[in-house]
Amino acid sequence: MADTMRRWSMAAIGRDKLKLETVAVPRPGPAEIRVKVSAASLNYRDKLVIETGMGLALPQPFVPASDMAGVVDAIGPGVTRFKPGDRVISTFKPDWIDAADNGNARVPAYQTLGGVYQGVLAEYVVFPDNWFSAAPESLNDAEASTLPVAGLTAWFALIERGGLKAGSTVLVQGTGGVALFGLQIAKAHGATVIVTSRSDEKLEKAKALGAHHGINSSEEDWVEATYRLTGDAGVDHILEIAGGPSLAQSIRAVAVHGKISLIGVLDGFEIAGPAGPLLLKSPVIQGISVGHRRALEDFSRAIDSTGIKPVIDAHYPLEDLQAALNHLDRGPFGKIVINLN
Amino acid sequence: MADTMRRWSMAAIGRDKLKLETVAVPRPGPAEIRVKVSAASLNYRDKLVIETGMGLALPQPFVPASDMAGVVDAIGPGVTRFKPGDRVISTFKPDWIDAADNGNARVPAYQTLGGVYQGVLAEYVVFPDNWFSAAPESLNDAEASTLPVAGLTAWFALIERGGLKAGSTVLVQGTGGVALFGLQIAKAHGATVIVTSRSDEKLEKAKALGAHHGINSSEEDWVEATYRLTGDAGVDHILEIAGGPSLAQSIRAVAVHGKISLIGVLDGFEIAGPAGPLLLKSPVIQGISVGHRRALEDFSRAIDSTGIKPVIDAHYPLEDLQAALNHLDRGPFGKIVINLN
Amino acid sequence: MADTMRRWSMAAIGRDKLKLETVAVPRPGPAEIRVKVSAASLNYRDKLVIETGMGLALPQPFVPASDMAGVVDAIGPGVTRFKPGDRVISTFKPDWIDAADNGNARVPAYQTLGGVYQGVLAEYVVFPDNWFSAAPESLNDAEASTLPVAGLTAWFALIERGGLKAGSTVLVQGTGGVALFGLQIAKAHGATVIVTSRSDEKLEKAKALGAHHGINSSEEDWVEATYRLTGDAGVDHILEIAGGPSLAQSIRAVAVHGKISLIGVLDGFEIAGPAGPLLLKSPVIQGISVGHRRALEDFSRAIDSTGIKPVIDAHYPLEDLQAALNHLDRGPFGKIVINLN
Amino acid sequence: MADTMRRWSMAAIGRDKLKLETVAVPRPGPAEIRVKVSAASLNYRDKLVIETGMGLALPQPFVPASDMAGVVDAIGPGVTRFKPGDRVISTFKPDWIDAADNGNARVPAYQTLGGVYQGVLAEYVVFPDNWFSAAPESLNDAEASTLPVAGLTAWFALIERGGLKAGSTVLVQGTGGVALFGLQIAKAHGATVIVTSRSDEKLEKAKALGAHHGINSSEEDWVEATYRLTGDAGVDHILEIAGGPSLAQSIRAVAVHGKISLIGVLDGFEIAGPAGPLLLKSPVIQGISVGHRRALEDFSRAIDSTGIKPVIDAHYPLEDLQAALNHLDRGPFGKIVINLN
Repeated sequence: MADTMRRWSMAAIGRDKLKLETVAVPRPGPAEIRVKVSAASLNYRDKLVIETGMGLALPQPFVPASDMAGVVDAIGPGVTRFKPGDRVISTFKPDWIDAADNGNARVPAYQTLGGVYQGVLAEYVVFPDNWFSAAPESLNDAEASTLPVAGLTAWFALIERGGLKAGSTVLVQGTGGVALFGLQIAKAHGATVIVTSRSDEKLEKAKALGAHHGINSSEEDWVEATYRLTGDAGVDHILEIAGGPSLAQSIRAVAVHGKISLIGVLDGFEIAGPAGPLLLKSPVIQGISVGHRRALEDFSRAIDSTGIKPVIDAHYPLEDLQAALNHLDRGPFGKIVINLN
Repeated sequence: MADTMRRWSMAAIGRDKLKLETVAVPRPGPAEIRVKVSAASLNYRDKLVIETGMGLALPQPFVPASDMAGVVDAIGPGVTRFKPGDRVISTFKPDWIDAADNGNARVPAYQTLGGVYQGVLAEYVVFPDNWFSAAPESLNDAEASTLPVAGLTAWFALIERGGLKAGSTVLVQGTGGVALFGLQIAKAHGATVIVTSRSDEKLEKAKALGAHHGINSSEEDWVEATYRLTGDAGVDHILEIAGGPSLAQSIRAVAVHGKISLIGVLDGFEIAGPAGPLLLKSPVIQGISVGHRRALEDFSRAIDSTGIKPVIDAHYPLEDLQAALNHLDRGPFGKIVINLN
Repeated sequence: MADTMRRWSMAAIGRDKLKLETVAVPRPGPAEIRVKVSAASLNYRDKLVIETGMGLALPQPFVPASDMAGVVDAIGPGVTRFKPGDRVISTFKPDWIDAADNGNARVPAYQTLGGVYQGVLAEYVVFPDNWFSAAPESLNDAEASTLPVAGLTAWFALIERGGLKAGSTVLVQGTGGVALFGLQIAKAHGATVIVTSRSDEKLEKAKALGAHHGINSSEEDWVEATYRLTGDAGVDHILEIAGGPSLAQSIRAVAVHGKISLIGVLDGFEIAGPAGPLLLKSPVIQGISVGHRRALEDFSRAIDSTGIKPVIDAHYPLEDLQAALNHLDRGPFGKIVINLN
Repeated sequence: MADTMRRWSMAAIGRDKLKLETVAVPRPGPAEIRVKVSAASLNYRDKLVIETGMGLALPQPFVPASDMAGVVDAIGPGVTRFKPGDRVISTFKPDWIDAADNGNARVPAYQTLGGVYQGVLAEYVVFPDNWFSAAPESLNDAEASTLPVAGLTAWFALIERGGLKAGSTVLVQGTGGVALFGLQIAKAHGATVIVTSRSDEKLEKAKALGAHHGINSSEEDWVEATYRLTGDAGVDHILEIAGGPSLAQSIRAVAVHGKISLIGVLDGFEIAGPAGPLLLKSPVIQGISVGHRRALEDFSRAIDSTGIKPVIDAHYPLEDLQAALNHLDRGPFGKIVINLN
């Protein structure tokens, strides 16, 4: 093994502060493991943290990004969950193991990798062993690296908190990472899937992935389109990804006693919507903030049993991070992955 | 039995159109029962319907109000659920029997008594037998008349949809009918109850009913007060009664993974709130539109086993409806009841 | 339309009492519809009722069987749910519409078609309109006739009461009607499916339907086989169809916090099992008695969105009922259907 | 602080092997805390472990009992959950933090204090800090020591897994520790509580604690008595404590869609019951094996908000353990507590 490794780090906020540096490979302490990173996937939030800091108390220097897959290559004393050679993926909120989250009403928990905790854009990372989860056997490392945020968010909304069943109608907004995972997860549970997009080309690709219906929201009122497609029954579960003002439309489109999962970056926007249909149709609106490790383990099992393959729009080598971030700005179809080792 | 009866009816919208008239006592048809009304309770919504019509296709002439208790005095052919002499209460949305509601995404169900269906401010009413539920044995008729809307709304939010358990913290806004039922129901399930009000006098009365804490929201920021009272844990379940803009405050006050039940009149207001804490704390926001008959039956059993006595601020005789509506305008502490027979 | 129709009826208990008779076509009364029966499917229970009466107060003369699909051809006054030409299927317990069942602890509800209520082995049936549910569009009548008992039982156990999600492991015992529906429903929700059978040939056919694993329970201890297949994790949901003594094995095979759905004919057997693993693994054991109409509606939607096609082992014309019952005795692979009109 | 302490230990199985010895006070290592034990409460299981070993791989020498309350008096490096002076209680299965339990289908988890892990009948204990939970403020140490097994078992069955609501009927068998906690917890949630016992005197004491009804099961068939008391509706939730054969009675007594929680010592008995009512009434039968730490935290909050005071039949000083075990044999009314420091 090499003594040094490359990693992206920044000593101050701003994309121009990103620096690809060579540092000593870290050693795992008690209860820690070192993982050789094979792939990291990017989320829009990573871009926000890089560009704005999002008000977080970041480690200095800061390594961005939260999602990776790799292979355990060294373990510290007291490690029992993994051994060298195991394939693992990271968890986004590593302190959230099961049902109850940490934090409180005044200061909700937001201790995440690539945030308050160090990130993963490095050839090796060292973290406590219980910050990782086993990678699904049916995915390669690039695919596996897309699960911790985008995949788990869709799973947590639709399955862990949504209890989706076959015959339900699910609508996902757009064709980004969470949306396409939502499409695939809903499809794998026998749901009827509707995708909205402003691009006919992306809608065609979504249909090729299994979507039953596509709505070009630049060409028609998507709420009316859902009424048409569902015979006025409405949508049982909406992944509300578009953000704030769109909620009002989702409240119109949702079925009686349906669900709306609010997903999005934490950039200070407001939600708003009409109270009338919210009372009369009595949907549940649930904020979704990724999910816990136990759900990630459930989801990994589901990946293996369903054969879902994450959709990766493009791969970039580690040194091309800036190009990858530019791609994020353009709105990828699915995920952007950084290949390492 | 008399051949004629008194009832309030209106041939057009407006409080000045209310007329106390004498009409023939109606006869029950197949599957219908006639109930001699002992008491009717008023909801703020009744006032809105009387004054604005709320855009509903009201029967002509229209008898207002939805909530009553009384005694079955005649049954039509094919009636099996009740017999003469049974004490019954009305249901608000009589077509909603159990889990699934009627209506669809475009046109949610709003077929209610004192609305699209005829109301109950009459000495006798005739409705299908499955529009009624047995009155709790432990309540008199005036008390029982307060359950179908105000009581059931609080029950449905906290228990049927809320799964409340002892040790949880519940906050109710104000001291109206729904709020005080919320207080009593939460207390009966071992919860810690916080009441907000702008009146110290009302807060004292709420504490006498069992509230653990009162917050005078004209004297302090009620969200900060909940942080103080809960050691920053926040409120597990908030009955959001105040309406639209208040939701933003409730999102700040709610505990991690808590619940906010939206309750209110359907007067076109907007909800709005910050997305950040909604995502990070991941509460459930659920619209509540009263509840189904099965939950009313559950609630009636709970009334008997817990000894909850609905809080009635004032009783009025049938002829004093206008005074009762004026009292509603002033904001009663609990419920206003019209006594009939 | 003809004035007369054929039907199977019996004036006394016993297979030799079955008589194919010609009677007048019945007319629908108020709130009733007449359905031209296209297909009826048989359940093992039908055989028990025919041969033993099962202690039920059967109508006289009695028409057996509960499950049918057909086309509405006449409606009585006051019917709103269906119109002539609609394709419908029957419900097994027609009084059970949604969450709460009828009956009480002493006398549970068992008012079913082909039991306390009249059955469906007739060219026309007349029942109240709310005893029917719309047939799925994607099935022909023979297929649709298999849903009301066998299909709904599996759906109710796995989905309505089971909340199945992808990645879970489901085990179904045997390859009868309920088991194969269980296989298909579990597969459509992304579960890993294990089938047990004493026949390698049937196991091969089950795998062709999508089962991941087959266990020949005459060749190996099926519990040990589940440990082997799941890496000792056990089975998340077991459809316990084999009956009484088998429960002890299922308790050994079930995963920690898993589920066991007890399904079976009501022929007086006993359940028994070891308390130790039941306490330590804390599974839920749930009796399943078919399901309610709302779940049948959900299931029908799921049939359409997933493309599940019920497995029919053999079709018989109406006059060959005795041959069909003989086939039931031999243990069909899936369902037996009687074709009418 | 003293350098030595007293503790009960045994080098071999058998009540005559119990030895009150004086040993050095242990020191906390990394992530451990030392707790000065104020009180320990006994469970029937402790007696079984002492007398039979229950087949467990016990530490040598073995200190019995699992339930204690005390005060933190020293902390090791890295401890963050507690500080000296905090009042704490033990957890029974310390590895079970939240929703998902450990272990697998073949070997369920049974790593408990006073079992595979060391016990608490000592003046000081040293365990990892996350093996403890904060003691409720409203209880003294003797009372608090009764929560980890008896209290949590009843809470887990009725609330965490039972979702009990006011108006439901709960039946508890007997007047032991779990039963009386069940009574108090059910009462605090507004349920109607029925207690069975063979002693009129104990039934009177149970009524004084809030039970609505007592059934002397040596004088009448308790199932028929529940029919009488509930108007044939049956019991919504039965705490099945009596063991194996009694389950058949509970299946008869349970309401349609009710729940039966199986609670008991793991002494190899069998459960058995009739399949007919199990299918027709479709209750849930759930094995209960105490509960997780998060539920113990919830329960502690509920203790404070409801004012429940655990029922302690007798207190014994540490040296009188044999007398306390004899009392356990006689069947206490509630709990037996050993007072230490």
